[in-house]
Amino acid sequence: MGAGFKAITSGTVTSPQGFLGGAVEASIKSPDKLDLAVLCSEKPCVAAGVFTANLIKSAPVLLSKKHLKGGRAQAIVVNSGCANACTGDSGMADAVEMTSLVADKLGLSTKDVLVASTGVIGVPLPMDKIRTCIQRIVPAKDGGHKLARAIMTTDTFPKEIAMAVETKMGRFTIGGVAKGAGMIHPNMATLLVFLTTDAVVDAYFLKSALRRAVADSFNMITIDGDTSPSDTVVILANGLAGTPIINQSNGKLFGAALDEVCRYLAKCIARDGEGATKLIEVAIESALSEAQARLAARTIASSALFKAAMYGNDPNWGRIVAALGRSGAKVSEKKLEVYLNGVCVMKQGSPVPFDEPKMRHGLDDKEVSVRLCLNLGRGKAVAWGCDLSEEYVTINSAYTS
Amino acid sequence: MGAGFKAITSGTVTSPQGFLGGAVEASIKSPDKLDLAVLCSEKPCVAAGVFTANLIKSAPVLLSKKHLKGGRAQAIVVNSGCANACTGDSGMADAVEMTSLVADKLGLSTKDVLVASTGVIGVPLPMDKIRTCIQRIVPAKDGGHKLARAIMTTDTFPKEIAMAVETKMGRFTIGGVAKGAGMIHPNMATLLVFLTTDAVVDAYFLKSALRRAVADSFNMITIDGDTSPSDTVVILANGLAGTPIINQSNGKLFGAALDEVCRYLAKCIARDGEGATKLIEVAIESALSEAQARLAARTIASSALFKAAMYGNDPNWGRIVAALGRSGAKVSEKKLEVYLNGVCVMKQGSPVPFDEPKMRHGLDDKEVSVRLCLNLGRGKAVAWGCDLSEEYVTINSAYTS
Repeated sequence: MGAGFKAITSGTVTSPQGFLGGAVEASIKSPDKLDLAVLCSEKPCVAAGVFTANLIKSAPVLLSKKHLKGGRAQAIVVNSGCANACTGDSGMADAVEMTSLVADKLGLSTKDVLVASTGVIGVPLPMDKIRTCIQRIVPAKDGGHKLARAIMTTDTFPKEIAMAVETKMGRFTIGGVAKGAGMIHPNMATLLVFLTTDAVVDAYFLKSALRRAVADSFNMITIDGDTSPSDTVVILANGLAGTPIINQSNGKLFGAALDEVCRYLAKCIARDGEGATKLIEVAIESALSEAQARLAARTIASSALFKAAMYGNDPNWGRIVAALGRSGAKVSEKKLEVYLNGVCVMKQGSPVPFDEPKMRHGLDDKEVSVRLCLNLGRGKAVAWGCDLSEEYVTINSAYTS
Repeated sequence: MGAGFKAITSGTVTSPQGFLGGAVEASIKSPDKLDLAVLCSEKPCVAAGVFTANLIKSAPVLLSKKHLKGGRAQAIVVNSGCANACTGDSGMADAVEMTSLVADKLGLSTKDVLVASTGVIGVPLPMDKIRTCIQRIVPAKDGGHKLARAIMTTDTFPKEIAMAVETKMGRFTIGGVAKGAGMIHPNMATLLVFLTTDAVVDAYFLKSALRRAVADSFNMITIDGDTSPSDTVVILANGLAGTPIINQSNGKLFGAALDEVCRYLAKCIARDGEGATKLIEVAIESALSEAQARLAARTIASSALFKAAMYGNDPNWGRIVAALGRSGAKVSEKKLEVYLNGVCVMKQGSPVPFDEPKMRHGLDDKEVSVRLCLNLGRGKAVAWGCDLSEEYVTINSAYTS
């Protein structure tokens, strides 16, 4: 393999050198499911994070932001089944205790441990269970897959990847794991994403590469328009690959590989939206600006009416155009072109006839693409979402019970 | 009855003096349903309108805005089953022809006729049917109820009201009719609303009274977050009650009665949201400003997760707080109080225990109320929405077919 990157078969968040993972059943989510996990590195890591823009932030988000201030970390403790959000001062005390339990167990300083919780809001963590079960976690090299399952809530499949990167300076690996499913809407970050690498990375560059990767991946997906108070994306770089330090001047390939890892995980989250039967890609071209292209792409991908039509394989493109018109992006109806699965359905403000039975057949697939040419400027963006099925409502009308 | 106002039994948009309505089955929507209607006044009217903020505007919206520039109108022609939006130049020609067909029939000038269309986007109007059937419409005093049915699409009940107003200056009546159900989200106005009055009203005052009434009613409802390109609210005042002219200085009671008519119709629309089983009222108190209170109320009422929880009678108040936190309104978690059906469930950033079976029983009602005290300032607002059921998806995954 020359300079470049490719996905590792069965790759996971512990694929990069020196990363270990472990998970146990702690009966937080339900009696027989993995729901408490630890991800750690054998060596201290350069670390960066991106967190929710929701003004209501969970205790784990507030604490992890604080611990990340120094730009380093070595472990993350995470549970599913309870978000530890809107839980007041005792919720913060519980988050602090989780980090100190893991710090004691692994012989680390508390401030090198991050914490993340996902699940129901407004319910206290069952700390008695957590205190006991955390001791049973045995972080191991092959523990990434267990961790990927332990952070799932209504997700139907684990979301993980690892990318082998070959550069002139040597080889390294980037791994990643994510959970999604509900309360997913682009705003800084989305629920839980942990990224790891054994590359040697400059702290400042790591932060900027993460922000850029998140902007084009997790910030461009939507499932239900609801931004979670728990959104967390963290990357840990332990440097065990022994490459020269990667920074702004030589980090192009690292950035591209990180982008690819984030885009892969983001698309997994969109595809596995609660009740979803298909992934929808919305591409906007020739908008007045990139910001307007992003706005338009995300608004269309969020439209309940468009999502329901896609579920029914209904080429009701009027809903795409209606969502575009309310997005805030500048639109000239006379210049607009709309393509559904590659077929032009509207041009210069008027409908273009198409073969409807053939179109319906094409929409009955696992992936659907929408492309709009605004013909106003050079801004472009891609957003990912999913269709809206009855199952979404069924799942969410009985979540806490 | 002293000075004040009260609803008229079986009141409708033709209850005010001199207003006539009529509707026929034109097979635009389906073969056996009323779908083409005319509302007209015996006398020219002072008129005002509020239209969609969507940048994609239907031909009828563009034409009616143009016709309303002079502040007068005498008739409205309306169809359901086809929105005549995204239909290019031929769509505009069709809208113009609809107004001239009615102008010829009633002996009016074309510019005194407004037009509104609701239904599928991107499909041309069946003008052959419209040309023939428009001649069969016989506007009559008792035609308001037929008109209310003719403008329905996925609405399950007609939405109409008339209010008798008694002032020191004399009596007059305000009538109104609305359709809603889908593509409903607060932004200037919502789908079709026609208001009538026999009061003598100053044109400038009529416009400002309408804007204020719309701001607190139609602009505060949401069904699915999608703003329609066809949103239209029009008021016609024909002056037949013979009262002294109502203006800014003496129009308080007129304004209050108009507010009540609009609020009633807006709540009808929210209650009859596609697939809805209940009306949800979200009241925000002590926000930093009125604008922030509006933003918070509408964001919560739009949250798919909160709406799905309400459908399942699930007191999952964390979703209310999560929506508040992403709304853009300033929030201090430590000051926040949340009430569900009058019961405090969160105070000062911490959960407050409540009787869950009793709460679930209370949520299983036709109306649910949410109240949040932000304890930051004096801004307040109320928004109305509905729950999200599997039926919403079923309706919208097979709308055009």
